[in-house]
Amino acid sequence: MFNGRPAPDVEPEARARRSRVLVGTEGERTVQRSGHTGDRAVRIVRPRLPGLRVTAPGYVTVEQQPEPTGALARGWRAVKRVLIGAPIRSAHETHERLSKVAGLAVFATDNVSSSAYATEEIMRVLVLAGVGALWLTMPLTMGIVGLLVVVVISYQQTIRAYPNGGGSYMVASDNLGTVPGLIAGAALLIDYVLTVAVSVSAGIAAVTSAFPALYPDRVLLCLLAIGLITLGNLRGIRETGKVFAGPLYVYVGSILGMVAYGVIRWATGTLPPYTPPAGAFEQVVEPLTLFLILRAFASGSVALTGVEAVSNGVPAFKPPEPRNARITLGWMAALFATIFLGMSFLSGQLHIVPDPREVETVVSQLARTLVGRSWYYYLVQFSTTLLLILAANTSFNGFPRLASIMAQDKFLPSQFTFRGERLAFTNGIILLAIIAGLLVWGFGGSVTGLIPLYTVGVFIAFTLSQAGMVRHWWRLRERGWRLSMAINAGGAVATAVVAVVVGVTKFALGAWVVLVLIPLLVMLLLGIRHHYHKTALQLALPDQHEPVPADLDAERLQHTILIPVADLNRAALRAIAYARSLTGQVEHGEDNGHARIVAVHITDNVEAGERLKERWDRANPGVDLVVLESPYRALVGPLLAYINAIERQQPEATSIITVLLPEAIPAHWWEHLLHTQTALRLKGALLFRPRTAVASVPYHLRE
Amino acid sequence: MFNGRPAPDVEPEARARRSRVLVGTEGERTVQRSGHTGDRAVRIVRPRLPGLRVTAPGYVTVEQQPEPTGALARGWRAVKRVLIGAPIRSAHETHERLSKVAGLAVFATDNVSSSAYATEEIMRVLVLAGVGALWLTMPLTMGIVGLLVVVVISYQQTIRAYPNGGGSYMVASDNLGTVPGLIAGAALLIDYVLTVAVSVSAGIAAVTSAFPALYPDRVLLCLLAIGLITLGNLRGIRETGKVFAGPLYVYVGSILGMVAYGVIRWATGTLPPYTPPAGAFEQVVEPLTLFLILRAFASGSVALTGVEAVSNGVPAFKPPEPRNARITLGWMAALFATIFLGMSFLSGQLHIVPDPREVETVVSQLARTLVGRSWYYYLVQFSTTLLLILAANTSFNGFPRLASIMAQDKFLPSQFTFRGERLAFTNGIILLAIIAGLLVWGFGGSVTGLIPLYTVGVFIAFTLSQAGMVRHWWRLRERGWRLSMAINAGGAVATAVVAVVVGVTKFALGAWVVLVLIPLLVMLLLGIRHHYHKTALQLALPDQHEPVPADLDAERLQHTILIPVADLNRAALRAIAYARSLTGQVEHGEDNGHARIVAVHITDNVEAGERLKERWDRANPGVDLVVLESPYRALVGPLLAYINAIERQQPEATSIITVLLPEAIPAHWWEHLLHTQTALRLKGALLFRPRTAVASVPYHLRE
Repeated sequence: MFNGRPAPDVEPEARARRSRVLVGTEGERTVQRSGHTGDRAVRIVRPRLPGLRVTAPGYVTVEQQPEPTGALARGWRAVKRVLIGAPIRSAHETHERLSKVAGLAVFATDNVSSSAYATEEIMRVLVLAGVGALWLTMPLTMGIVGLLVVVVISYQQTIRAYPNGGGSYMVASDNLGTVPGLIAGAALLIDYVLTVAVSVSAGIAAVTSAFPALYPDRVLLCLLAIGLITLGNLRGIRETGKVFAGPLYVYVGSILGMVAYGVIRWATGTLPPYTPPAGAFEQVVEPLTLFLILRAFASGSVALTGVEAVSNGVPAFKPPEPRNARITLGWMAALFATIFLGMSFLSGQLHIVPDPREVETVVSQLARTLVGRSWYYYLVQFSTTLLLILAANTSFNGFPRLASIMAQDKFLPSQFTFRGERLAFTNGIILLAIIAGLLVWGFGGSVTGLIPLYTVGVFIAFTLSQAGMVRHWWRLRERGWRLSMAINAGGAVATAVVAVVVGVTKFALGAWVVLVLIPLLVMLLLGIRHHYHKTALQLALPDQHEPVPADLDAERLQHTILIPVADLNRAALRAIAYARSLTGQVEHGEDNGHARIVAVHITDNVEAGERLKERWDRANPGVDLVVLESPYRALVGPLLAYINAIERQQPEATSIITVLLPEAIPAHWWEHLLHTQTALRLKGALLFRPRTAVASVPYHLRE
Repeated sequence: MFNGRPAPDVEPEARARRSRVLVGTEGERTVQRSGHTGDRAVRIVRPRLPGLRVTAPGYVTVEQQPEPTGALARGWRAVKRVLIGAPIRSAHETHERLSKVAGLAVFATDNVSSSAYATEEIMRVLVLAGVGALWLTMPLTMGIVGLLVVVVISYQQTIRAYPNGGGSYMVASDNLGTVPGLIAGAALLIDYVLTVAVSVSAGIAAVTSAFPALYPDRVLLCLLAIGLITLGNLRGIRETGKVFAGPLYVYVGSILGMVAYGVIRWATGTLPPYTPPAGAFEQVVEPLTLFLILRAFASGSVALTGVEAVSNGVPAFKPPEPRNARITLGWMAALFATIFLGMSFLSGQLHIVPDPREVETVVSQLARTLVGRSWYYYLVQFSTTLLLILAANTSFNGFPRLASIMAQDKFLPSQFTFRGERLAFTNGIILLAIIAGLLVWGFGGSVTGLIPLYTVGVFIAFTLSQAGMVRHWWRLRERGWRLSMAINAGGAVATAVVAVVVGVTKFALGAWVVLVLIPLLVMLLLGIRHHYHKTALQLALPDQHEPVPADLDAERLQHTILIPVADLNRAALRAIAYARSLTGQVEHGEDNGHARIVAVHITDNVEAGERLKERWDRANPGVDLVVLESPYRALVGPLLAYINAIERQQPEATSIITVLLPEAIPAHWWEHLLHTQTALRLKGALLFRPRTAVASVPYHLRE
């Protein structure tokens, strides 16, 4: 169709020879080939091809890849095998369905783990107005729990509407358009990075609370934790209930037990005395303004991060998926709210003051005061660390997946869609690890330093997602749409208000970074899609009714093959034999009508050039030699000048120049240092030249 | 001859078309072509080719190289033009002939400049046995001057025997054999590097003596000086008498004036009082043993460095060259000896003590004591710095030249023979600058720290050179050979003794590094030649009576062209049209008997592969498509497996596989980030694969 010519009838002998490559056969079976060239079957029997299996004519499956041969390559593969594991076939991917209990463990980790620092972050702001302002912790906690209830009910509507998973990027793109979708997407990407940084920092803070001697090394510990999570994800840890259930339920159990014990001690009036950590806040820094209270609220609203995880993961539940997801979401909110309220209440009753140097967390102070430095204290600290690190792990699932979805939509480089040997989105995982690592390092592993950047992106995504749901109900008007729309509208308003509160109160502290970054990211994402779009347009096939463009028409292309030779040696002869046989010009001066071959010797020494030309003409290797004198001793420049001159003589779009480099390849890689990297430099210089192809014809040295 | 076939008679029309490229013509002139294919002249008239000039049939001179087009390339060229200057033609190289006065300036700089630190280095060792041991400075100086006289007379014999320049490498290679030659060469290479490091450090020490505030930045100043010398040499500073004469004669004049003034003050008994620098040596560290005295002698023998420069440069003198060179060498020794003796004498009389912190040099103390901090003091310091930096510059002449000679002899990589745009040996200059810079940085710009490494290499080269001369006279037995041989034998013994003294007394202080490095370097040099030798053997043409080897015989080569395609797009069609027209297989299935073309689509998604194959077969782009299923999602591995399978089917040495990569080249370099670098990875994986060529067929995007 494309060429407009029918496929010709080839004589069977030539067909048979070609089909050995095209089709291949397996074992002693005879494979019949019936391609588009006709139905004349060819019968050939060939030995089994190791590692390959012919599944159908024209279809070959690679059963086994060749082993690497170099020492470096083998070493690298061995290291990879140990760290990452053996490759997994695409067909072996497993899809686990989660019960409500397992689902709660997988999707609630991110949210529930924020109870480890939410209370503390409220207190850190309030204490700026003096220890006396800390009584506001409890009312603010209750306000945030109220907000949580609104958002959770709102998200239950999303689950109903998007049983296949409704992330903010998708809901906003679907209902509000590309740019709101990209804003939500950009906010989420930032959010995932910050989740890793904050969770890991908080997890290591729990460690250094128990073992203050490790405090100076907290950044190193954070980076180690990120490295471990990265490796685990490159190995392809799935969202498996088994891994997650343990830490979550141990954390919930130990914390709830501690809270219950504290409440009993409070009810019986036997709360133990509290010793603040060294250097605790005493003096008043700021007056207790409404702004400060709102800032404390904004800090605490970090408690809502991770709420959207369940609605993203609806399809992972056992059927009926939406119902199970909704129930799980409710349970998650209930668990989180209980812990959060309990911790804030007990902190208030014990008059706990946050540690200004961030050595000991509030949870650690609480546990230490209630149960002393007993085994129970270490259980709490240990399970907190584990849960927080698993929370970071959920971002390692979310970020690469979102990046791959956005890359499929052409908003991110296609590298993000690639899945590595273990089916993990390698590039997304590594990028996330690098950015999160840099953040942790830049902020010295301080949770409080990272919090102002964190929440604003979360609430922007919430708002866009809920607003998208409002639009969704309005468009579809399914049964009960009015109530759902009202709930989502309430959620949208509530989260929008919080987004504004967070943006304003935390603006100077760091939220501005995110507010500047999101539009920049959106512009970048749009720019990337524009590039791919342009590329696709330029690469699209011409319309079948159009004439074939000259530059794609084999019949009209004219080749000039230039072979730069340093000497008359076997490498040069190999390249010449290559060019002559490829073009079918086996006799000297023979011509297939499409290609001419010239050898070029570039030299700054004309006498040496003359000697070479004499030897050349005497040896008659089959192509003519042009001696190109380079008065400035350069190599690339004169060749380019020569190519330009040739092109000026035949300026049609149909002329192609091929530079064929005879390359003597040493037997050992380090011997490359002893050879001028002429080939490399020529390839670099010619890469951006239109209508110029560069090939190396290797002549491999044996020793 | 090589193919054994006579060049065929081609029809004139085809010949004319080819000759447009092969020969080209200029202006309206008609160029007659009469190559080895016969004498049938072809007359063609073509417009002038810009930048090229056809000098004879088959000979083209590149008059002008194309301008770079990319913004980066243009910027880099502009920077290079400012720093280095415009390119110089090989033909424009000038060869200056030097008078005795100019020759003294050029070749004596290295040696005379060592008077700036030779006295000090003797004193630095003696003072370890207390200030009282410093009286030995003068006797040791006299001993070293005596050694200098022996060596100079010895070298005058070398000048007589080698009127074309007799460096130690050449004299030792010529007369003693390859390994002694390489030992001398390795010692000299090390010596050149150390000359740069020591001279620059001493030059900057003269600056920081005058301006102690600059002392903390001395390493930076050293590196700046090295950078400036490097740039100057990349610009191609010649050994011009004009540049060198000024500093040398100003230095000699000002120092001799100071010495004369000091001697007069001494004779009249009016020597001014001396104030030692802060923290001068007081306590005795070591006993005054013979070993320590020998070590002081070894330190002072640094005074002999640079003596061989004149004998290297004999051809640069005006005729009669050997006579002028011998006289110049004598003058050099006389000047140096006078300065050296005068300085040691006055230091002793003034009871000068070296500065333990190396802030103020002995020359500076001497000048300060004699003439105060007057203009004369600054003249001495300034001319010392300038002379020392010019001394470093002589190494920038010697090292790259020696490296290029050794590279011509195949002992060093051929890159060292390459002369850059300004006719300088670019690679040698840059390598020298890097190693010397690292040394200065490693030793913190301390002359005393570097001295133990310095002298041992010099005296090894001296010894081998003089021993070579003994052999030379013995072999040739020219007129007067007995006296010459005796002189050189004396020189050889004297320098060998000093080499042993230096090696032993300075062994633990750093000489061991050089004594270990020299054999390692010799082994490396031999290994490099072995590699080149092996390569040349393997690349040599087969004997003309032998049959043509199969892998070089165009008639017997069989090609398989694999075109990995990601999609059916213009880039793929371009590559297919390229392959089909190159091989002359314009009709589907046509065959030139030497090449088969297959398109390969590698995918982990069989359904997508099937859809592509359907579209492909419908569009019929002229070659068949094989869908290669990759169950592990890898790209390179399956292609390698497929190539291996093809090769297993046709295991002859005559089969060649060409991987033709359709590459869409973005219009802007940064857009490359948005494309998976598949082509690059495939090229890397296939580079070391025998009988496999890789080419990119670019499809350049316009926007």
